[in-house]
Amino acid sequence: MSNHRTYKKLEIVGTSPNSIEEAIQNAILETSKSVNNLDWFEVIETRGHILDNKVAHYQVTIKIGFRIEAS
Amino acid sequence: MSNHRTYKKLEIVGTSPNSIEEAIQNAILETSKSVNNLDWFEVIETRGHILDNKVAHYQVTIKIGFRIEAS
Amino acid sequence: MSNHRTYKKLEIVGTSPNSIEEAIQNAILETSKSVNNLDWFEVIETRGHILDNKVAHYQVTIKIGFRIEAS
Amino acid sequence: MSNHRTYKKLEIVGTSPNSIEEAIQNAILETSKSVNNLDWFEVIETRGHILDNKVAHYQVTIKIGFRIEAS
Amino acid sequence: MSNHRTYKKLEIVGTSPNSIEEAIQNAILETSKSVNNLDWFEVIETRGHILDNKVAHYQVTIKIGFRIEAS
Amino acid sequence: MSNHRTYKKLEIVGTSPNSIEEAIQNAILETSKSVNNLDWFEVIETRGHILDNKVAHYQVTIKIGFRIEAS
Amino acid sequence: MSNHRTYKKLEIVGTSPNSIEEAIQNAILETSKSVNNLDWFEVIETRGHILDNKVAHYQVTIKIGFRIEAS
Amino acid sequence: MSNHRTYKKLEIVGTSPNSIEEAIQNAILETSKSVNNLDWFEVIETRGHILDNKVAHYQVTIKIGFRIEAS
Amino acid sequence: MSNHRTYKKLEIVGTSPNSIEEAIQNAILETSKSVNNLDWFEVIETRGHILDNKVAHYQVTIKIGFRIEAS
Amino acid sequence: MSNHRTYKKLEIVGTSPNSIEEAIQNAILETSKSVNNLDWFEVIETRGHILDNKVAHYQVTIKIGFRIEAS
Amino acid sequence: MSNHRTYKKLEIVGTSPNSIEEAIQNAILETSKSVNNLDWFEVIETRGHILDNKVAHYQVTIKIGFRIEAS
Amino acid sequence: MSNHRTYKKLEIVGTSPNSIEEAIQNAILETSKSVNNLDWFEVIETRGHILDNKVAHYQVTIKIGFRIEAS
Repeated sequence: MSNHRTYKKLEIVGTSPNSIEEAIQNAILETSKSVNNLDWFEVIETRGHILDNKVAHYQVTIKIGFRIEAS
Repeated sequence: MSNHRTYKKLEIVGTSPNSIEEAIQNAILETSKSVNNLDWFEVIETRGHILDNKVAHYQVTIKIGFRIEAS
Repeated sequence: MSNHRTYKKLEIVGTSPNSIEEAIQNAILETSKSVNNLDWFEVIETRGHILDNKVAHYQVTIKIGFRIEAS
Repeated sequence: MSNHRTYKKLEIVGTSPNSIEEAIQNAILETSKSVNNLDWFEVIETRGHILDNKVAHYQVTIKIGFRIEAS
Repeated sequence: MSNHRTYKKLEIVGTSPNSIEEAIQNAILETSKSVNNLDWFEVIETRGHILDNKVAHYQVTIKIGFRIEAS
Repeated sequence: MSNHRTYKKLEIVGTSPNSIEEAIQNAILETSKSVNNLDWFEVIETRGHILDNKVAHYQVTIKIGFRIEAS
Repeated sequence: MSNHRTYKKLEIVGTSPNSIEEAIQNAILETSKSVNNLDWFEVIETRGHILDNKVAHYQVTIKIGFRIEAS
Repeated sequence: MSNHRTYKKLEIVGTSPNSIEEAIQNAILETSKSVNNLDWFEVIETRGHILDNKVAHYQVTIKIGFRIEAS
Repeated sequence: MSNHRTYKKLEIVGTSPNSIEEAIQNAILETSKSVNNLDWFEVIETRGHILDNKVAHYQVTIKIGFRIEAS
Repeated sequence: MSNHRTYKKLEIVGTSPNSIEEAIQNAILETSKSVNNLDWFEVIETRGHILDNKVAHYQVTIKIGFRIEAS
Repeated sequence: MSNHRTYKKLEIVGTSPNSIEEAIQNAILETSKSVNNLDWFEVIETRGHILDNKVAHYQVTIKIGFRIEAS
Repeated sequence: MSNHRTYKKLEIVGTSPNSIEEAIQNAILETSKSVNNLDWFEVIETRGHILDNKVAHYQVTIKIGFRIEAS
């Protein structure tokens, strides 16, 4: 059992005024400030705020998976 | 009960030959012609039409929420 | 019953380092090498791989529908 | 952006004592009295009322899509 | 609290070689032999068996609701 | 076909600082100002806003069904 | 294998003119008249009937779990 | 392990101007031209095209299961 | 209509300290004490209780289908 | 990219012997002891424990969203 | 665009009289006879056939992903 | 309100080359190194990696619930 890997998923909402991709990237970047080994993401929900009949910002909820360091 | 807010959601399909974001923006813009106070959107489905092995246009179904004016 | 149409859907995962749209387009292009009459797609899942706290590539699972030639 | 199309979906419950298909058709017919350009439908739910151990009527919830006239 | 009503739902699979509607009706009829007050049904799943490239019988899973007699 | 009934569902978000039930009731009351014959509702989503570590208001999304007047 | 426990779930719709909680309690109380050892419940669906633009009664579908007596 | 059976599922969209059942049957018939041993189907989605306020054709997506010949 | 078959599904939670398969088997065995003709099962949910950082027992919710005797 | 906001969601189960609303409030209050800036919640699941044929306590799973401080 | 990878998913039902894991392995083994580069699987559904109140065989539906050779 | 209990759920992916159960156990064991009072788990997703047409390792995503210490 010594070589199994274990991962944890966090649920993060990234935002961007420009694109869905940038919102995802922002979520990852912000999460990386406190978590190492970020490995993959899964998009859970895409929504956003409207201002003056334009998308003010995209709000993309993703799950971010990262490996828990084996002890 | 005088200060509660009520919202309605419409289900709109926006399209664009270029991107998912533009399809969302087009849906919002078109809806704004007949509805005021657009507040937020939620992406429900993303699909599209293929022509000559290319994406001819994206069809993005969103729900658009807006406040109903309190009377 | 002679004029009904029948379609088949394939489930394909396209990838791209740049955008969700390009991942969709790549999936369609690759599928078109072995299947004709590609007609529409439906996005099923959007996820991706993270490297050095950046999106290394988007992995977009789509269903691609195409008409089966009537015999 | 001038040639994009936008669609709206309504959620309608059609009923019929006879069949699921007739319930769908009834929903479409009734909706057509106040909306133009009906284009497609999607079945969301099929249920019904029972009377004397027989189906009294089918209740089929469909979403009906129609094009919003471009201005 | 004396006048509230309570209902129970049973999950039944009706079958028919002919149609989805007949499968639903068969499920209701068979259930009515042991349960009274059948009130409504909800279609949960539609599937079937294929024999010689034809539908041998439809298998329609429905939930049947009925009122529990108040004591 | 003259005696079938047809219903429409609207998706409304009611809010209340006090309870889920009051949010539902507020959504119904507000909708009744512009729509007649409200018949039933279905809760789709329950969420809310937090202020100072308390629920500031509940936001309950419901679908409201009402009969379309037969013409 | 002698000490395993087995549970059954029933699907019950409780109703109340007053609250979701009372509808749940009514469903449990009515079920307890014919079933012992009720152990837990899970809310499946919340809906209701509207009369005169007020909630006439809540209809809450719950699954009720209870232990089957080991023989 | 020599006597296990393995099945594959294909996702097919059958169409018919007349009924859901005929659309299912058309999907099965068309699939049977290139695949043997068709065994069962599961309805995934029912939708359709509207023309002149009538159902022009039903589009029923089914999964068709068939046994893969053991080698 | 004399040769149609009708089935009922029960929702049962089997438990086992050892494996998911044993929990399924236990649910079937316990159900068979009061119901005949058990035909198939579908796994709905897999969960379990943890004690001292080990799985104390698996709790597997299954639906068990059985034929209702034709009368 | 300097002014984007990022949020994290935690999944918390609050309990209360009295009401769903109090269970939600308890979950928020307990979470606020270790997390700042709580912003919104989403109800994921409502269930509960039964004792002596009464609801012993409601168990409401919510996701709680809060802003991650920009660095 | 020369280095993107594309994957296809097949939906396969593996069976085994012994365990869920063996049913998965059987599905993979059988698929490998006609497809190369099998890369990952996702469990979609677990069910089975009951005979004499025992699990006669597990039927596990999985999606199997594999890389399409870049041309 | 002094005696209510609050729980938190973490989403963990356990892996094992041997079985689904071992993957679950590994996820629990690894989580227990940093969290106390682990109480229950819920299986969310089962998937895995294939190598040489064999399951290289199972990847089982579970949610793990544990009591937050009342202060």
